Amino acid sequence: MAAAAQLLRGAARAARAPPALARRALGSAPPPPPGVPATRGGPRWALAGALGGLGLGLGLWRRRAAMAAGEEEEEEKKEEERLRRRFMAPPVSGLRELRRRRRELRSRMELLIMETQAEVCRALAAVDPGAAFAVDTWERKEGGGGISCVLQDGDVFEKAGVNVSVVFGQLSEEAARQMRSRGKSLKASADGKLPFCAMGVSSVIHPKNPHVPTMHFNYRYFEIEEADGTKQWWFGGGTDLTPTYLNEEDAVHFHKTLKEACDKHDPKLYPKYKKWCDDYFFIKHRGERRGIGGIFFDDLDSPSKEEVFQFVQSCAKAIVPCYIPIVKKHCHDAFTPEEKQWQQLRRGRYVEFNLVYDRGTKFGLLTPGSRIESILMSLPLTARWEYMHTPPESSREAEILEVLRNPKDWVH
Amino acid sequence: MAAAAQLLRGAARAARAPPALARRALGSAPPPPPGVPATRGGPRWALAGALGGLGLGLGLWRRRAAMAAGEEEEEEKKEEERLRRRFMAPPVSGLRELRRRRRELRSRMELLIMETQAEVCRALAAVDPGAAFAVDTWERKEGGGGISCVLQDGDVFEKAGVNVSVVFGQLSEEAARQMRSRGKSLKASADGKLPFCAMGVSSVIHPKNPHVPTMHFNYRYFEIEEADGTKQWWFGGGTDLTPTYLNEEDAVHFHKTLKEACDKHDPKLYPKYKKWCDDYFFIKHRGERRGIGGIFFDDLDSPSKEEVFQFVQSCAKAIVPCYIPIVKKHCHDAFTPEEKQWQQLRRGRYVEFNLVYDRGTKFGLLTPGSRIESILMSLPLTARWEYMHTPPESSREAEILEVLRNPKDWVH
Repeated sequence: MAAAAQLLRGAARAARAPPALARRALGSAPPPPPGVPATRGGPRWALAGALGGLGLGLGLWRRRAAMAAGEEEEEEKKEEERLRRRFMAPPVSGLRELRRRRRELRSRMELLIMETQAEVCRALAAVDPGAAFAVDTWERKEGGGGISCVLQDGDVFEKAGVNVSVVFGQLSEEAARQMRSRGKSLKASADGKLPFCAMGVSSVIHPKNPHVPTMHFNYRYFEIEEADGTKQWWFGGGTDLTPTYLNEEDAVHFHKTLKEACDKHDPKLYPKYKKWCDDYFFIKHRGERRGIGGIFFDDLDSPSKEEVFQFVQSCAKAIVPCYIPIVKKHCHDAFTPEEKQWQQLRRGRYVEFNLVYDRGTKFGLLTPGSRIESILMSLPLTARWEYMHTPPESSREAEILEVLRNPKDWVH
Repeated sequence: MAAAAQLLRGAARAARAPPALARRALGSAPPPPPGVPATRGGPRWALAGALGGLGLGLGLWRRRAAMAAGEEEEEEKKEEERLRRRFMAPPVSGLRELRRRRRELRSRMELLIMETQAEVCRALAAVDPGAAFAVDTWERKEGGGGISCVLQDGDVFEKAGVNVSVVFGQLSEEAARQMRSRGKSLKASADGKLPFCAMGVSSVIHPKNPHVPTMHFNYRYFEIEEADGTKQWWFGGGTDLTPTYLNEEDAVHFHKTLKEACDKHDPKLYPKYKKWCDDYFFIKHRGERRGIGGIFFDDLDSPSKEEVFQFVQSCAKAIVPCYIPIVKKHCHDAFTPEEKQWQQLRRGRYVEFNLVYDRGTKFGLLTPGSRIESILMSLPLTARWEYMHTPPESSREAEILEVLRNPKDWVH
């Protein structure tokens, strides 16, 4: 699912940023502030800077209604500068366009995914201070673009990517077919057109130490406009953990943090999305899950746009606290070459899931115009396949396999 | 395509070996002759022993018509013993059953794929004498089985697998759908049944040295019986090379050897199957071929069963001469860590092709009851993915990429 948001084609008809605007915004990017590690490709943005609460970005713009015109313009510039310094790169839609349509959910979602990207990158950089993020901004010919932040071969992380994408245009026939097969009724206009807008933040983090698990998350939002003007919208997402070795304490911490985020909204959510996660990340030909799960949901369009957005925001806020403490706890653990090898074999299974089953990856690879490097950033730096590898009974390798074959409940 | 033969379900109704017979044949396997390296799993068979011409296996049985009964039985036993020592394991259908229906093409094809497996394994063992093949025989609950020979972590080969499979039963709906989508008209009986028989030999050989290319081949035969009793049959196959670095001399030798094998039958075959190979092994999302090609064909059902079989036999005989001289030439070449790393990145692309595009692999993974370890034996021992890796202009890495992007004609 990692890259689903990047892959669809189409356009939400109402107020949207034309590609030219996004390009202007990128063109006006300032040089990186002093002290930020040098990275290649695209404009460089600050990792530093205090991070306000999520959604704060629009606070000022809301208050501004009461201000005088000159004062307003001055404050707008300051607020833009603050956001500019906080994010990894300028938002795809451009700050001015986001301000113009600040009450629309897709503007708020775009700011949320930008915030999430920056927050996660900052947290990763804090535990792997020697490593630098490559920040690449890219544009999609058919509409929209994205920001890929990738850290490679650090001290703590083998490969960590955090992508944002905001794309719009006309839904491809293949995409519409896939959506309909998931039960969506999409009424295209006479010429078959279905304008859409899709955006999301997605990430895969592969650490070096086999005692630090791999983590993946993805939060995304879709809008499709049908022939009669009806707008369909939904959210999808999830956060899940893939350890090489089982650590029950970590598993409980991870799931508990996600459960707390869900419970704020409805106690029924966590059990449902925990199971959905176990079902989705299933490597059918191996009879194993990819990892020990987390939460996963898709097509979420009730009770209301606002409530679902609030829920997604809670999930996004839970990413750093559910994962970073586990990284800090284990990133200096001693490990043997055999443990590293088992990690590499598990990385092989990760590749199998992502290339064979993951809907977003598969769809992305088959869709012309998608940015392959951003989609395949999810693959580990290195992986291994041994013929007929079977860990000995009662080994720690057999212990994790047992949990991958028979998922457990970690919190009640 | 590697594992296509293993994946289909169904049965050719006429004379075939019931699973019990195959099991008996396996049960009666003798211990490995002295001097054959110890391997794990399944009965051990000799790599040693002179290899007669392909198809020789049935020679005696044909001559036998003229012999007296007692003499015949004695000769039969000797002939069986000779075949037993020559093959990597007893044939799936059993030697007695193969003898009984010796005039049928599928018996001759089963002997050809057994011969090819043994010949290739012997040739690999000769250049990597310290390495041992694991020989695993397996049965398929729904009908048939196979023999997997895998050499792992040798001195010359990182991973080399040579699989034989002979499966039969009822074609699955998914398989029938895929075949129809390729243009086959398959008339099922009222209960939807389509008995089939599929067999093949397939192999992927990943050497350690980045100056020795990876090689893949697969030769397969299908029979499907339609509701009105009509039998459809066809052959498929090919041999292709995936170098890490371009060596024009090797490329010419490889293609020339394949061209000579084709030209014996029809000068139109090589150009057609060379192009088909370039088109098939295309990693669409990368805009690159997997390697520098070779030959590839499918659905081959004319001019006659006998002529196509003879052609496939010529292709099978060309495997060792087109590849082994290249292995011998380069297996002691010096290489740098950077060259090894480029090889690992190319291995990553190999994984991408096999998991995302290869029809046989994809279909096998999605088909219940197939032997996953035999299908995924095609994956390299290790692979690597770097974000945004681009070799410098005019480098040897850029040189091979150019050929993968724009296939060349190597022989005229």
